[in-house]
Amino acid sequence: MFDLKDYLRSRRVMINDALIVILDHFGHTGRIRQAMEYSLMAGGKRLRPILCMAACESVGGQLSRVMNAACALEMIHTYSLIHDDLPAMDDDGLRRGKPTCHMKFDEATAILAGDALLTLAFEVSSKFQEEDSPALAVKQLQVIRAIAHAAGFQGMIEGQMQDIASEGANLTLNALEALHVLKTGALIEASVYVGACLGEADSLQIEQLCTYARRIGLAFQVVDDILNIEGDPSILGKAVGTDANRNKNTYPALLGLENSRSFSRRLIDDALKAVENFDNRADPLRALAQYIIERNQ
Amino acid sequence: MFDLKDYLRSRRVMINDALIVILDHFGHTGRIRQAMEYSLMAGGKRLRPILCMAACESVGGQLSRVMNAACALEMIHTYSLIHDDLPAMDDDGLRRGKPTCHMKFDEATAILAGDALLTLAFEVSSKFQEEDSPALAVKQLQVIRAIAHAAGFQGMIEGQMQDIASEGANLTLNALEALHVLKTGALIEASVYVGACLGEADSLQIEQLCTYARRIGLAFQVVDDILNIEGDPSILGKAVGTDANRNKNTYPALLGLENSRSFSRRLIDDALKAVENFDNRADPLRALAQYIIERNQ
Repeated sequence: MFDLKDYLRSRRVMINDALIVILDHFGHTGRIRQAMEYSLMAGGKRLRPILCMAACESVGGQLSRVMNAACALEMIHTYSLIHDDLPAMDDDGLRRGKPTCHMKFDEATAILAGDALLTLAFEVSSKFQEEDSPALAVKQLQVIRAIAHAAGFQGMIEGQMQDIASEGANLTLNALEALHVLKTGALIEASVYVGACLGEADSLQIEQLCTYARRIGLAFQVVDDILNIEGDPSILGKAVGTDANRNKNTYPALLGLENSRSFSRRLIDDALKAVENFDNRADPLRALAQYIIERNQ
Repeated sequence: MFDLKDYLRSRRVMINDALIVILDHFGHTGRIRQAMEYSLMAGGKRLRPILCMAACESVGGQLSRVMNAACALEMIHTYSLIHDDLPAMDDDGLRRGKPTCHMKFDEATAILAGDALLTLAFEVSSKFQEEDSPALAVKQLQVIRAIAHAAGFQGMIEGQMQDIASEGANLTLNALEALHVLKTGALIEASVYVGACLGEADSLQIEQLCTYARRIGLAFQVVDDILNIEGDPSILGKAVGTDANRNKNTYPALLGLENSRSFSRRLIDDALKAVENFDNRADPLRALAQYIIERNQ
């Protein structure tokens, strides 16, 4: 019987160790490095790198191949949180129960620490050893391209722009979905794609894994909205009820709580179906899909 | 006789055309794209991409090989200007005679437009065509790594941190040089390295070209400081005397004007010496070195 708790724990240790090795390798002790480490090691769930690793494992790939890209994905996720929290954006003072980067340091340092994490992500994912085959270099370029595209102005950044622009406006269900596909979905899909690609998945497997990723990515957001209503702030590490107070467009606001729950359930069923012909090496992906709707943080 | 004016004009047209093709390829007309284009096409000198192209030409490389990386370098330079101008950093309202990005749009858009240009730089430089050889992919990874390292928290970003931290403090000449090596020197050196690397330079040529780049990079900064004292604001497109008003650490403040001039002259002589055994294909690099100390903008 597959034990997700054990799996998540061991994968988080692997990711955290790899992140620290990377930061230490660039052995630098200045204020910018402190700010990067502060936000990077603030206790995130590591969902994106774990999805990347699990996708790689699901097709029998070697984990060592994906660790740099997995770390890059977490760096990009962290940079996006640092910048989203800035006074000019969402103006958030707390994240995971701790002061946000610009509160702990200052605004200039937070902007630069975000920039530095984004840049470091690409430095890390372009690492190449002479003994590696040139064919791997071609795959790495594909991976860098996919990550940059998902994180860029046609993906995550456009999502954040739309999110800011839509505050106070009433979105349709389609517009809300489009926003989330960009803001969080694109990078989640890229995480799975990267793991599959470096794990030597064939094109059909990549297609199936990307369908899986799109469904769980959206479900993740629906559950986020639900937790903002009925979550426990002490477990979540952030306040609840904030979406309603800000009049934010959310799934529960548009569909109601019950329909949001069944919608997320349906998305997870679709995700599981997309990988149904994978063998038990895809069990981590299956368990992660369940975890996404059952989580309380 | 080599005509630099003609050369600069033709290379700027090539870069500007390539930048527009890239933006149009990602055919998107939203506010973020507008802000990216506004700053990217605001009339910069294109020094970094032109150095990249000239380094490639100096070793007989094909220009078509470096155009994506050259555009990426200009995108990174532009993003750094957008973020440096933000209220939390240098708080500048004008750049090249036009409102800065956050003045023209707003702070959130400027932060995101900078993020988007940085991200797009890596999307562009990871472009790979199936007909290209895998050996080129290995070189492209080296290039991405060099650009990310130069732009990151051990290069340009650390330089900006030190620049902010040193306002009001009295730096030694060594500390001032170290700051500029990070803040502007690293990306200028990377520009030349990238052109050389993709132009198939051998390791001795790369070494000589990087020496050239380090000398002109520092000379560029010394001249910038001199122009801030005796430049013509209408030609420069920005105010003069601002360094003295802010008590900034500059070469003229530390060395005096005359010594700063002879220091920049010596740096350019060193740069020319580093490439003295190159043939006339290095004439653009030689002329660019002269241009750097003779420019008035």
